[in-house]
Amino acid sequence: MKRAFFVAVGSELLNCKINRYSIILSEKLRKEGITLIGEITSPDISNMIIKSIKFASENSELIIIIGGLGPTFDDLTRKSLSELLCIPLVYSKKVEKFLSFRFKDTIKYPNLINQCYVLKGARLIENYNGTAFGQIIKKNRKTYILLPGPYSEWEPMWEKIKGYIKSNRKIFFHRFKIAEMKEIEVENVLRSVIQKYTNLNYTILAGADICEFSLISQDSKQFLKAKAEIEKILSEFIYGEGEDSLELKTAEILKTKKLTLSTAESCTGGLLASTLTDVPGSSVYYTGGINAYSNEIKIKILKVSQNTIKRYGAVSEQTVKEMALNVKKIFKTDCSIAISGIAGPGGGTPDKPVGTVFIASSFKNKIKIIKRFYPYKSRSFVKKASVNAALWNLYKMLKYS
Amino acid sequence: MKRAFFVAVGSELLNCKINRYSIILSEKLRKEGITLIGEITSPDISNMIIKSIKFASENSELIIIIGGLGPTFDDLTRKSLSELLCIPLVYSKKVEKFLSFRFKDTIKYPNLINQCYVLKGARLIENYNGTAFGQIIKKNRKTYILLPGPYSEWEPMWEKIKGYIKSNRKIFFHRFKIAEMKEIEVENVLRSVIQKYTNLNYTILAGADICEFSLISQDSKQFLKAKAEIEKILSEFIYGEGEDSLELKTAEILKTKKLTLSTAESCTGGLLASTLTDVPGSSVYYTGGINAYSNEIKIKILKVSQNTIKRYGAVSEQTVKEMALNVKKIFKTDCSIAISGIAGPGGGTPDKPVGTVFIASSFKNKIKIIKRFYPYKSRSFVKKASVNAALWNLYKMLKYS
Repeated sequence: MKRAFFVAVGSELLNCKINRYSIILSEKLRKEGITLIGEITSPDISNMIIKSIKFASENSELIIIIGGLGPTFDDLTRKSLSELLCIPLVYSKKVEKFLSFRFKDTIKYPNLINQCYVLKGARLIENYNGTAFGQIIKKNRKTYILLPGPYSEWEPMWEKIKGYIKSNRKIFFHRFKIAEMKEIEVENVLRSVIQKYTNLNYTILAGADICEFSLISQDSKQFLKAKAEIEKILSEFIYGEGEDSLELKTAEILKTKKLTLSTAESCTGGLLASTLTDVPGSSVYYTGGINAYSNEIKIKILKVSQNTIKRYGAVSEQTVKEMALNVKKIFKTDCSIAISGIAGPGGGTPDKPVGTVFIASSFKNKIKIIKRFYPYKSRSFVKKASVNAALWNLYKMLKYS
Repeated sequence: MKRAFFVAVGSELLNCKINRYSIILSEKLRKEGITLIGEITSPDISNMIIKSIKFASENSELIIIIGGLGPTFDDLTRKSLSELLCIPLVYSKKVEKFLSFRFKDTIKYPNLINQCYVLKGARLIENYNGTAFGQIIKKNRKTYILLPGPYSEWEPMWEKIKGYIKSNRKIFFHRFKIAEMKEIEVENVLRSVIQKYTNLNYTILAGADICEFSLISQDSKQFLKAKAEIEKILSEFIYGEGEDSLELKTAEILKTKKLTLSTAESCTGGLLASTLTDVPGSSVYYTGGINAYSNEIKIKILKVSQNTIKRYGAVSEQTVKEMALNVKKIFKTDCSIAISGIAGPGGGTPDKPVGTVFIASSFKNKIKIIKRFYPYKSRSFVKKASVNAALWNLYKMLKYS
């Protein structure tokens, strides 16, 4: 098994919901040595589901079908696959028992019965977060996997599915997580490495003041050599790999050093705090913060001097400095971060255009202030980029002290 | 022309970049009376591009191909379509002139020449934001449209493309934005309407303590009748339509009534503030807030009584009440919102399991406290659901007072 095709089922994916699973699946498949060769989205129309699965099976050995397994009448995946493969749907007592036990109070009877029909001979994968079982069935040397639509349902089932899709190949993959560099800068500094090795695939993904560089190869020698060279070239900008995030890396270093953190935000309006508290267990190091959106609050609650704001403006080195130092004092933490900038679309001046941001990180008696300018893309881009820059600023400070 | 198929070309869409165009395209097509019937993503492999376009053309009259038009060697869309349709690529003097004039300093010569090859007989659409022209070509009653990958390049070209894809149909579309109801509850209360009208399509999209119900039809009578009935049934839960969000609706009502707002967050850790400040111009009504992640901060800065926390716990009606009233006092605002809960995965107790959240909204001398329980999906789900519930709670309070 070398190639997989992903069939996404659901009219909503063609109308109003973004299909985010291709890249999640391709990463999971890659770990098993399988390449995702294509994706197709079908509406909830039986005829289209059948054609889509057929096309997928003509172009790969493994067909992963996600969605359309719910109990309602527009969920047609099971029936369509049954028709395509000429394999009947049969009532499963095993599924009935499992569902009756888990959902006795919450699932209505006709729905429950619908969910008990499975493809004859299919391996069933239990779903502990919903009512649709996963199903694996082989026919004519092709493997078909049926999974329920919600990520929270199918992701936990992957561990079991893996056992059925082993390939003999090994795909080497490394994702560098890079801060402070733009996509195009990364491409430029890595050009010589990329051109030297011909058995490598790579992709660069832009982010908000961060980016990702992924290296893919089946040639272990070239992969390892290139990886080492890239690590050397990018070293001071690499904050992690794989699923690492700046908030996770910051969490790690704060926990290791047993430090606490507080935040004072203006233009990011709580996004820094929210990002920090996305990490489970963040209450150990993050005590809280103040969103000082108005100048009055900066003065009254964060105790920034009125004079500083008057003289230098709310978006200035001086103001973020006071914000960082004061919030640290008020919250009695070891470290603090303060951000003030212009998120746009309004509020810019010739001196300080939209996208101008000042960030201060303080740790004990040290403080490090940076200025960033993000050519305006969107309000949320400026917010996200500022948060990433702020986390990176603190991270470096803690790492080298 | 009734049905369109979208072919997305680019290996990155199968590796690391989310394909966001399906829903953008389907909305644009709907306005022209055309239904998006499917989407297929092809890697940068000529053979797969050809097969994908072929499949698309077998299932629709309009095939929109986006991506793979760049000047580099992995951009194969043009060649693939030329091969599939048996239409040669020809050198266009017109394109050369346009590109030479616009990019004389920035485009390298071999690249420039590559971009001058177009399908013989194709209508060319100028690209003012990149080097790849759009192309429209008809063969065997099918219309093929080639567009460059970046949204910033193809979106401005849509205005011209529209002229070539007119359909005689009109598609009626309405998206209800619903708060406080689960996907399944919406389906249940609307079942009678849905079953009564046979010429309607609909989709339900689950969210975090919100959901969307979209109604699509070509039958204006049924559409209008169904729409009116649904509005009546869901009335007290509808917060908007189309692109409306709870933060936008909250913004509107606060601005109309000239009210200010402050926030005190525990489990949502700044997400409420960040959501509020995603709205441009939010500084008019949002003054700021306190993220009181630790109990110490709740007591020291938010002035929640130590006794309250000791007696009822930090996650309790009593605590959020004090948080809301105190933050309003401290920030001197007309309204306030406070949230305290258990976002998980840890921190639950038998009494207050993970997903338990208390929310208080206060306006002048009134306060409304609600309790929510979100069966655990993820930390970020609990955070988002709590924020939506909180915005809705305040919105209703302001609307009916």
